[in-house]
Amino acid sequence: MKALQYRRFGALPEVVDVPVPVPEPGQVLLSVSAAGLCHSDLHIMEATESEYRFGPLPLTLGHEAAGVVAALGEGADKFSVGDQVLVYGPWGCGQCPHCAQGKENYCTHPDGVRPPGIAVPGALADYVLVDAERHLVPLGGLDPVQAVSLTDAGLSSYHAVKQSLPKLTAGSHAVVIGAGGLGHIAIQIIRALSAATVIAVDVSEDKLGFALEVGAHQAVPSDEHAPAVIRKLTRGFGAMAVFDFVGAQQTIELAARAIATEGEITVVGAGVGAIPVGYRTLPFDASIRAPFWGSRHELWEVVELARSGHLRVEVEQCSLEEAPFFYERLKRGQIRGRAVATPGSREP
Amino acid sequence: MKALQYRRFGALPEVVDVPVPVPEPGQVLLSVSAAGLCHSDLHIMEATESEYRFGPLPLTLGHEAAGVVAALGEGADKFSVGDQVLVYGPWGCGQCPHCAQGKENYCTHPDGVRPPGIAVPGALADYVLVDAERHLVPLGGLDPVQAVSLTDAGLSSYHAVKQSLPKLTAGSHAVVIGAGGLGHIAIQIIRALSAATVIAVDVSEDKLGFALEVGAHQAVPSDEHAPAVIRKLTRGFGAMAVFDFVGAQQTIELAARAIATEGEITVVGAGVGAIPVGYRTLPFDASIRAPFWGSRHELWEVVELARSGHLRVEVEQCSLEEAPFFYERLKRGQIRGRAVATPGSREP
Amino acid sequence: MKALQYRRFGALPEVVDVPVPVPEPGQVLLSVSAAGLCHSDLHIMEATESEYRFGPLPLTLGHEAAGVVAALGEGADKFSVGDQVLVYGPWGCGQCPHCAQGKENYCTHPDGVRPPGIAVPGALADYVLVDAERHLVPLGGLDPVQAVSLTDAGLSSYHAVKQSLPKLTAGSHAVVIGAGGLGHIAIQIIRALSAATVIAVDVSEDKLGFALEVGAHQAVPSDEHAPAVIRKLTRGFGAMAVFDFVGAQQTIELAARAIATEGEITVVGAGVGAIPVGYRTLPFDASIRAPFWGSRHELWEVVELARSGHLRVEVEQCSLEEAPFFYERLKRGQIRGRAVATPGSREP
Amino acid sequence: MKALQYRRFGALPEVVDVPVPVPEPGQVLLSVSAAGLCHSDLHIMEATESEYRFGPLPLTLGHEAAGVVAALGEGADKFSVGDQVLVYGPWGCGQCPHCAQGKENYCTHPDGVRPPGIAVPGALADYVLVDAERHLVPLGGLDPVQAVSLTDAGLSSYHAVKQSLPKLTAGSHAVVIGAGGLGHIAIQIIRALSAATVIAVDVSEDKLGFALEVGAHQAVPSDEHAPAVIRKLTRGFGAMAVFDFVGAQQTIELAARAIATEGEITVVGAGVGAIPVGYRTLPFDASIRAPFWGSRHELWEVVELARSGHLRVEVEQCSLEEAPFFYERLKRGQIRGRAVATPGSREP
Repeated sequence: MKALQYRRFGALPEVVDVPVPVPEPGQVLLSVSAAGLCHSDLHIMEATESEYRFGPLPLTLGHEAAGVVAALGEGADKFSVGDQVLVYGPWGCGQCPHCAQGKENYCTHPDGVRPPGIAVPGALADYVLVDAERHLVPLGGLDPVQAVSLTDAGLSSYHAVKQSLPKLTAGSHAVVIGAGGLGHIAIQIIRALSAATVIAVDVSEDKLGFALEVGAHQAVPSDEHAPAVIRKLTRGFGAMAVFDFVGAQQTIELAARAIATEGEITVVGAGVGAIPVGYRTLPFDASIRAPFWGSRHELWEVVELARSGHLRVEVEQCSLEEAPFFYERLKRGQIRGRAVATPGSREP
Repeated sequence: MKALQYRRFGALPEVVDVPVPVPEPGQVLLSVSAAGLCHSDLHIMEATESEYRFGPLPLTLGHEAAGVVAALGEGADKFSVGDQVLVYGPWGCGQCPHCAQGKENYCTHPDGVRPPGIAVPGALADYVLVDAERHLVPLGGLDPVQAVSLTDAGLSSYHAVKQSLPKLTAGSHAVVIGAGGLGHIAIQIIRALSAATVIAVDVSEDKLGFALEVGAHQAVPSDEHAPAVIRKLTRGFGAMAVFDFVGAQQTIELAARAIATEGEITVVGAGVGAIPVGYRTLPFDASIRAPFWGSRHELWEVVELARSGHLRVEVEQCSLEEAPFFYERLKRGQIRGRAVATPGSREP
Repeated sequence: MKALQYRRFGALPEVVDVPVPVPEPGQVLLSVSAAGLCHSDLHIMEATESEYRFGPLPLTLGHEAAGVVAALGEGADKFSVGDQVLVYGPWGCGQCPHCAQGKENYCTHPDGVRPPGIAVPGALADYVLVDAERHLVPLGGLDPVQAVSLTDAGLSSYHAVKQSLPKLTAGSHAVVIGAGGLGHIAIQIIRALSAATVIAVDVSEDKLGFALEVGAHQAVPSDEHAPAVIRKLTRGFGAMAVFDFVGAQQTIELAARAIATEGEITVVGAGVGAIPVGYRTLPFDASIRAPFWGSRHELWEVVELARSGHLRVEVEQCSLEEAPFFYERLKRGQIRGRAVATPGSREP
Repeated sequence: MKALQYRRFGALPEVVDVPVPVPEPGQVLLSVSAAGLCHSDLHIMEATESEYRFGPLPLTLGHEAAGVVAALGEGADKFSVGDQVLVYGPWGCGQCPHCAQGKENYCTHPDGVRPPGIAVPGALADYVLVDAERHLVPLGGLDPVQAVSLTDAGLSSYHAVKQSLPKLTAGSHAVVIGAGGLGHIAIQIIRALSAATVIAVDVSEDKLGFALEVGAHQAVPSDEHAPAVIRKLTRGFGAMAVFDFVGAQQTIELAARAIATEGEITVVGAGVGAIPVGYRTLPFDASIRAPFWGSRHELWEVVELARSGHLRVEVEQCSLEEAPFFYERLKRGQIRGRAVATPGSREP
C-alpha cells in the first residue's frame, strides 16, 4: 500500500510502498477514507535529531483518521467489516486510573500515550492499524473528509472549551486567539454551548473575516492595541475565558492582559511563549493551563455537535501525493481551516 | 474445579464440579482468592421462574471477586500471571459513550451490563473468567478477603456518597439508613471525605452500636420518633444527604421527612418502598435518585481509600462449602458487615 | 396612588386608592413601569380562607416588577433617583447562609421568604416599596414591559435549566412540557446555553406552534402517544432533562417515562401531580426535584441573556384597570407568553 | 477609646485615643473582643509613600475582628445589642454580580473592596464600626480569641482549599508550603474535607513539627531535595494540589515541580516569586492561580468547621499595647500560628 512517511531528519516526507499491516488479536485494520494534516506534524519534521522524541523513522504520518473497517483481529467483535469510523488518537494503556475514565490523553502508564502518526504508523496511508476497538467511534453518517479533523482539531478545541464552560455565563466574553484550524472550530463550539460574546483575535485580516463567518461577534487585529480594545469590549472586566491557539510570546501576553478575575486562560497552541505567574501577576483567581488533546467521551460529544449541525470544519482536500506540498502551504499559513488527504481506496 | 451454582428455581445453591474455563483472546483467568456473598444473590434466588431475568441456569454465583491472574488470553498483555487483582463487576461493552468514560454500570449497548455471577459465571468458584483486562484493578497490597467487598458493597456506597459530596459542606448532616454491609462502609466514606455530621438509623440496636464504632456521630433507632429526632439533630433544617440502604416503605418515608432544602436522597437498597414526588412534596430543590453500582474509576478511588486506612470492611469469612449456610444467615440479618468465601487454591 | 388589591376571599381583585409608601432607612421607592401577572396570583386568589398562607388582606398583587427609583431611604446610596431597575422578588433576610450566597429564595430565617405581591404589598400599583437595595438589578437598557417577566417567569425557568446544563451535552435531548409563560422562555434558554435537541410538549396546537417559533426542534402533542414519540425521538435513550411547567398528574407521569439514565426531571409547575419514586422506579440515577424561583446572581444572568438577544419574552400588555380581566384570560389559558400591566406614571 | 494606628510612613504603629464611632443607618458598632495581627499589616507598614495604596493615615489597623454588638444604626434589625459576632472582612458594594453571590472579595464596584484595617478604620481598637449587617456572622459559641483568625487566615485558607477539593480524591496528595498562620489551618482543612495525603514543606524544623502535630502526614524540609522527595512520595505522579502560603521564588518553583497532570497550584502567600507559564511549562492541564480572601458563605463554612472541632487555630494572645511588639515577632517568624490582640472592654 501507499504511505506518506517521514524518512530522514530534515527531508520532506515521501509517498512509499509498504506492506499492508495485519491485525493481531484485538486490533482493527481500517481502509483510510480521510487523514488530516496537522501543525504538529510540522513540529515532528522540524525537530533536530537530538530533539526528536517521536516514533522510529521511517514514520508514517497522520494522527487524524477516518476509515472503513477492513479486517478485525481475533476477539475484536464490536465492529464489523464495512463499518465507517473515526479514530480516537491519544492511545493510552486503557487500564490506568486516567484511562479508566477515558482520559487516555493523560495515560499514566510508563509507555505513555502512543498516537498513530506520532509514536506508531499513522493514517496518511491506504490502511492504518488501530491497536484496540475502544479507539473507534462510529462516523454517524458524517462525511469522512469533513469529519476527520474532529478527532484532533475538533477534540482539542472541544476539550479546551468544555473545561471553561461554567465560566461562560450569559454576559461574559470569550477570546479566541488564532482563527486557524483549531480556532475556527473553537469559535463554533463556544457559540453552540454558551451565550458568551466571542472575540476573535488574529494577525491576518483574512482569518478575522473567516472568524466572523463562523460565528465570532467581534474580530480584533492582533496588534499593540488589542489589549485595550478587548478591555473596552468587555466593559473593563476582561474575558472570562481566553483560548490561545498560537502560544507565542505576544499572544500569551495578550491573554494575560485580557483575562478577568476568576477567568481561565487555556494555551492550546504549541508556541514557546510564557508569562511569569505568581501572586497578583494575573487578576485574582484567574488561572492558566495548557491541555493536550481530549478524552474518549469528548470525541463522542464533538461528533454529536457536528451531527446536529453546530460544527462545520472548513477543509481543503488533497491526495496522498499532494500532501507534502500541502504541508508547505500549512507552514506558510495558507490553509483555510484544515488540510485533509484522501488516500483513496486502492486494493490492499 | 469447584463452583457454587444456583441450579434449580427455588432450590439452595450447590457446590458442584465444573471444568476450568479457558481464556479466549483478550480474556483473563483468575484463581479466586475471595468472593463476596451479597443480598442481591438472594434476590436472584428468590425470583420466580417468570420474574427471573438473570443468567441461564445453572448459574455460578458471586459478583464480588478478588483473585490471582492464572492465565491470559491472546492479546491480553497488561497483567502477568501471578498478579493480584480485584474485579470491576458491571461489565459493559466498553465502546458506548457511557463505557467511554468508564461508567460501564450504565452501558447503553443493547446487551446491557453483564456482571459475573449475575449474567455470566461468577466468582464463587476456584476460578473465574474475566471478559476483558480493563475489568481488573490491582489489589495494591490489600488483603483479598478484606478487600473483595470493595468491588460492590464498597463501590456502590462510594458512588452514592460521591455524588452528594458537594452538598456535604461543613455544618451539614448526612443520614445513613441501614448500618449493614453497605451502610457501615458509607459511614466511613462520608467521615473520610467530608466534615458532615453522620446520623445512622437502623432497627437493630446491635447495628446502631456497630455504626457508632465505624464513625457515625449519632445513632437513631428506626421508629416513629426518628423523623422528629433527626429534625432536631439537624437544628430544624434537615439533612443535606440521606442514603437509604434499605429502600423499604418506612425508610424511604423517613428519608423524605429528613431531607433539607437542596438536599439529596439516594436510594441504594433494593426494597420496594416509594414516595410520591411532585411539586412541593419534598423541600424545594431536594432531589431523589436510585443509582446502580459505580464506575471503573470510582473503584480505583475506593481501593485507595482502603489503602490509606480510611475504610475497613467488616467481614465474616467462610469456605465455598459453607456459603449456602451463610446465605441463610445473611437472609436473617445475622451477618456483621459482609460475608466472604475463600474458594482456596485448589489445582485446576 | 392606584393599586390592584385582592381584598376579600373569593372576590375579584380591585383597583383602589392607597397612600404612596415612604421609604424607611435602607428602603427604595419605585415608580412602577411594568408589573407582571402570574399564574401564582391565581393560586393566591383561589385559596380558601383556611388554606390561605399569604400576606394580610387587602393584598396589593404583583411580584414581577420593573420601575424607576423615585425615592431612597436613609443609608440607601447605591442607586439614584431616576435609575431604571428590575426587582429581585424572593426577599430573604440577607444574613443566613443561603442569603449569604444570594440564594434568598431558600432563606432559612424563621420569617421565610417575603416577596412583594405575595407576603407584602406588590407592584400592581403606581409605586412599590422595595425593602433593600440589594433586591434591585439595573434594567440595562431593556424595555421594562419586555423585561419585567424576567424577574419570575425568566428567573424560575433559568434556575431550573441552569442546574441541568451539565447534563445537556451535545447529542442529548431536553423535554419542555408546557409552552406557556415559563415554557417558552425555558426553550430559548436551553437553545442559548446548550446544543441539546429541544422537544416541546403541550396540549394546545397553538402553543406547540409557538414553541417551534421560539426555538423548539420538535413539538409533540401531550397525549397517550407522547411517551413513545419521545422515546423514539431520543433514539430509545430518553431525555437527559425534562422540565415540567405544568405539574399535573399526566405531565409528571410523562416526565417519568421520558427521562434517561442519569437524567434530571425538574417540576416547576405548581400542579398537584406526583409519581412514586423509590428503587428502580425511574432509570438509574435519574433524579426528580422541584425548585422555587432563583438566586440573585441568576437574575443578573437572565438579564444578560435578554440583553444579548438570546431571550425574548412574549408579552400581552394591559393597564392596571384591565388586569382583573387579564387574570380571567390567564386562567382560561388564553395568554400568549406573559401578561404585563403598566401602571403608568401618575403623580404620587 | 484606644486604637492601634499606623500614623506616619515608616514609623511603628501607636496606641492613641480616638472618638468612639457612631453607627449611621444600616451600620453596626462592635465592642471588639479580639482582633488578629496579620502579615498583610506588615505589607501595609512596609510600603513606601509612593507604593502605599491603602486607607488614609492615620489608619487603625486590624482586619480580623470578633466582637459584641454595642449599637445598631437605624434600619439595622437583624442583630441585637449583646450578640457575639465575627466580621467578614472584604467589604464590597453588596450590589454587583459578584457581591450578589456573596463573593464580595471580588466586588466589581469602582470603589473596590474596602476592608476594615486596610481601607477604613480597623478592629485593633476598643470599638470597630461595621458598614453593614451582612458583614456579620454569628460567633456560634466559639471563643472569640480562638475564632477571630477564622475571618482571614481561616477564610483565605478555606477558599484556596475548597476550589481544589474535587481534585483531592482518595489516593491523591496535597502539598502545603509554609506551615505558619495560614498553612497550619490549611492542613487541618484538607484533612477534614478529603482523604488526600498531606505533605507539609517549610524551612523551619519547628514549623514542620507543628505541621505534623496539626495533621500533616509527611513533613519535608524546603531545600534543594524537596522536589525529588515529593516526586517520590507521590509515586512519581506529583501532587494534585499545591498550596503555596509563601509565594517566594523558591517556593513557587517547588510548586511547579511538585504538581501533577491536571493538578492545581494555588499561590496564597504575597511573595514576589513567579514562574514562566505557557505551553508544556507545567504538566498538561495543571493550572496556577492566586486567590484573595474568600466569600461570605465560605466564612459560614469555616465557622462550622471550627464548631465541629475539625479546625483549631493556634493563637498567641496579646494586649493592644503589646501589639507593636508582636508585629516585630511576626516579622521575625517567631509567632506560632496567629497573633491576636484583645482590646478588652473599656468603657466608651
